[in-house]
Amino acid sequence: MEIRREMEDFMFCAPTQLFFGRTALDNLAESINIWSPNKRVLVVYGGGSIKKMGLYDKVMDILNEDGAYIKELPGVEPNPKMGLVREGVHICRENRIEAVLAVGGGSCVDTAKAIATAFYYDGDVSELVGQWWKKEVLPVLVISTASGAGTEMTTSTVLNNEDTKVKKGFHGPDLRPKVTFLDPEYTFTVGKWQTAAGIVDGISHTLESYFTQVDGAYFHARVGEALLKTFFEYGPIAYNEPENYNARANVMLGCTWACNGITTKGNYAAWICHGLEHEVSAYNDKITHGAGLAVITPRWMRWALDENTAFRFVDIGVNVFGMDKNIPPLKMGEMVIRKFEELFFDVLQMPRNFKELGLVDEALEVMVKDMQGVVTPNIQKLLFKPNDAGGHQRSSGRML
Amino acid sequence: MEIRREMEDFMFCAPTQLFFGRTALDNLAESINIWSPNKRVLVVYGGGSIKKMGLYDKVMDILNEDGAYIKELPGVEPNPKMGLVREGVHICRENRIEAVLAVGGGSCVDTAKAIATAFYYDGDVSELVGQWWKKEVLPVLVISTASGAGTEMTTSTVLNNEDTKVKKGFHGPDLRPKVTFLDPEYTFTVGKWQTAAGIVDGISHTLESYFTQVDGAYFHARVGEALLKTFFEYGPIAYNEPENYNARANVMLGCTWACNGITTKGNYAAWICHGLEHEVSAYNDKITHGAGLAVITPRWMRWALDENTAFRFVDIGVNVFGMDKNIPPLKMGEMVIRKFEELFFDVLQMPRNFKELGLVDEALEVMVKDMQGVVTPNIQKLLFKPNDAGGHQRSSGRML
Repeated sequence: MEIRREMEDFMFCAPTQLFFGRTALDNLAESINIWSPNKRVLVVYGGGSIKKMGLYDKVMDILNEDGAYIKELPGVEPNPKMGLVREGVHICRENRIEAVLAVGGGSCVDTAKAIATAFYYDGDVSELVGQWWKKEVLPVLVISTASGAGTEMTTSTVLNNEDTKVKKGFHGPDLRPKVTFLDPEYTFTVGKWQTAAGIVDGISHTLESYFTQVDGAYFHARVGEALLKTFFEYGPIAYNEPENYNARANVMLGCTWACNGITTKGNYAAWICHGLEHEVSAYNDKITHGAGLAVITPRWMRWALDENTAFRFVDIGVNVFGMDKNIPPLKMGEMVIRKFEELFFDVLQMPRNFKELGLVDEALEVMVKDMQGVVTPNIQKLLFKPNDAGGHQRSSGRML
Repeated sequence: MEIRREMEDFMFCAPTQLFFGRTALDNLAESINIWSPNKRVLVVYGGGSIKKMGLYDKVMDILNEDGAYIKELPGVEPNPKMGLVREGVHICRENRIEAVLAVGGGSCVDTAKAIATAFYYDGDVSELVGQWWKKEVLPVLVISTASGAGTEMTTSTVLNNEDTKVKKGFHGPDLRPKVTFLDPEYTFTVGKWQTAAGIVDGISHTLESYFTQVDGAYFHARVGEALLKTFFEYGPIAYNEPENYNARANVMLGCTWACNGITTKGNYAAWICHGLEHEVSAYNDKITHGAGLAVITPRWMRWALDENTAFRFVDIGVNVFGMDKNIPPLKMGEMVIRKFEELFFDVLQMPRNFKELGLVDEALEVMVKDMQGVVTPNIQKLLFKPNDAGGHQRSSGRML
C-alpha cells in the first residue's frame, strides 16, 4: 500500500469572485452585465423566505432597473430534485437565457448549477451523475442566504434522483459560480435548525480532509484548525444571537473557505461522512443534510479513534481547544469527540441518533445494503496498517 | 476616529491557476496554448541559476517542442529596474508577443508584470507607479524558483526607479498571473541567504495584516496563525535541509497564500514594515528585501508593544507558540518578539541591524526624510486612542 507522506501534487484554481458584506449587492447589476451581455437571466429560488426578508424585491428591482429579461424558477426544496432541473433547462432553452442566478441556500445553488450544465447536454440530467463535465456551462451567479454547503465556491452539484432515491452529484471546472454575493445580513432570518445544520456541514467539510491528512500537508491542517476555531467560536453565537453580524460573517466566510479546495488540494479528502449522509438524505429527502452529519460525524470519530489514529485528535485537542498536550492520546481523543458532541447536541440542538433524525429501522437496512458498493472500497483503500507507514506518528492509520 | 470592529466589506478574487508539485510543468505547454493562441512568448529570467539547475533547458525544450516563437529577456536582478522593463516592452512590441513567462523569483515576476502592463501604455513605465491599472495587460505566467514575495498570485508589481531611487509599485486586477507553476524542487538550490530572506518576507506579509486586524476578522487572524505556524515549523528545516521536499513545499505554498488576499480582504493591512523596507532597498538596491524586513520587523514589534496592544501578541503566543495564557501580556509580548528574533537571527542568520545590513548613517538620514511623506500619515491614521475603542480588548491600539 502506498504511503502518503509528502504533500501531493495538485492544481488549485478558485476564480469565483466574492463580494462580501452589506454592500455586496451593489455589484449585482455590473456582474450580470459582464456574464450576460443581453441580460437574459433565470432566477432560481425556493419559497417565501427571500420574499419575506425583502431580498426578492431588491433583486428584482436591481434587475428590472438594469433592463434585464427575467424568467423565474421558484420551488427549490432541500435536497434538490432533478425534476426541477429539467424544468429549468426547458425555460432556459425557450428563452435564450444566458446566466442563471441562484438566490437562496445550497439547494438553490446546486439546482442552478445543474440547470446551467444540463442546458448544454442533449440527454437527461440524470446521465450527468458522476461525470467531470469539461464542456460549456451557463454562467452561474449566486446570492447566498444560508451558510454551510459551500457550493457557492465549488465545482460540484449534488442532486436527488426522485426515481432511484440516489443522491449524487456531478462536477466540472465551470460549475464553479462566476460571482458569489455573500451578505451576512441575509442569513439573520435563517432559523435555528438550518443555522445549526449549516455550521455542522461546514465543520464536516473541514474534518473530511483533516482526518485523512497527508502528512506533508501541514499548511492544510493548520488552515483546517483555523476553520474549526472559527466554527466553535462563532457557531454558538450565530445560533443564539441570529443578528450578530460578526458571528454570521465569520460562519459564512468559514463555510465558503471550508469547501473551496484550500484544505483539500495537495491533501486527501475521503468524504466518508458525507458519503454516508448522502445515503441517508437520499432515502428520506425530508432529512436535513447537516442534521444527518451531526448524527454520523461524532459516531464515525469514535469508530476511527484508536492508538494509531489518536494523534490527529490530539492535534485538534491542543491546537483548536487548547488542551494540555500531556493528556494521554486516547483520553484526549475522547475529550475532543465530546467537544463536538457538546456543540452539535447541547448547543446547536441537533439530533443525536437516527431515531431522532426520523429514520426507521427498515430504512437503515436498505441503506446499509446500498452503501456496500459506495463506501467500502474507500474504507478498504484507507485502512493503512500502521507498520506500513513507519510508525504511527507518520501513519494515517485507519483515518478516512 | 472610526472604530473598526466588524469584518469589513470586501471583494476577493484570486483566479490564478496554481499547478503545484513535481509534475507542475507537465501543464506548461497547454497553458501557453490557452493564453497565447499563436504561441508568441517572452521569457523573462535572471542569470545563471535557472541554467545551472537545468530548468532553462527544460522550459525551452517544452516551448520549442510546442512550436512556440520565443524571445528572451535575461538579466533580471533583485529589486528589479525600470530600464529592463522598457527593454522588455520594446521586444514585445517588435515581436507581437502575446504572453510573458517569468522564470525565477519575485523580481522576475514583477519585471514580467510591469512589461505586460506597460505594453499597453503609451507613456513611460515610471508613470504607472501608484496606479490601479484597469485596462488590458498581456497574460503573465510564472514558473517560480523562490519562495517569499508572493507576487506569483498578487495584483501588484514593485519596481526600483534607478533615477529617483524610489521603490514603489503599481497594481491592477489583470496583473495577477494567469497560471503559476510551483515545483518545490526548483527551490532546492536556492541559497541559505535567499531562503532565509524569503521566509522572513512570508512572515512579514502575514504580520502586516495580523497586527492591524479588524476585530471581526476572526477567520483571517486564525489563518494568519496557520501561516505563522507553517513558517516556524518548516522555515528552519528548509534552511538547514535545502532538499527537504515537505519543508520547501510548505514554505512555498505558505508564501503564496500569505499574500493573495485571504488574510487581508475584510481585514486591514497597513504594510508599515514593507513601506519602511522599500525605502531601504530603494536607497541601496543591493539590499535583499527580506533581510531588510528582518532588521525592521522585530524592532517595529517592540515599538508597537504596549499595554493596549499586547493582546495581539498574546494571541500569537498562545495560538502559535503554545505559551501559557496566564503569562502577563507584556511579558508574553516580549517572549513572542524573542521568538521572531531567534528565528530571524539565530536560525536564519539574517542581519540584526542596519549596520549588518550594510547601511551607513548618511543613508538613514536621507531615508528618514523620504519617509516623512510615506509612512507618517499611515501611522497617524492608525494611532488609535484606546478609549475610543471601548476597552483595549476591542481596540486595535497603536497597532499598525
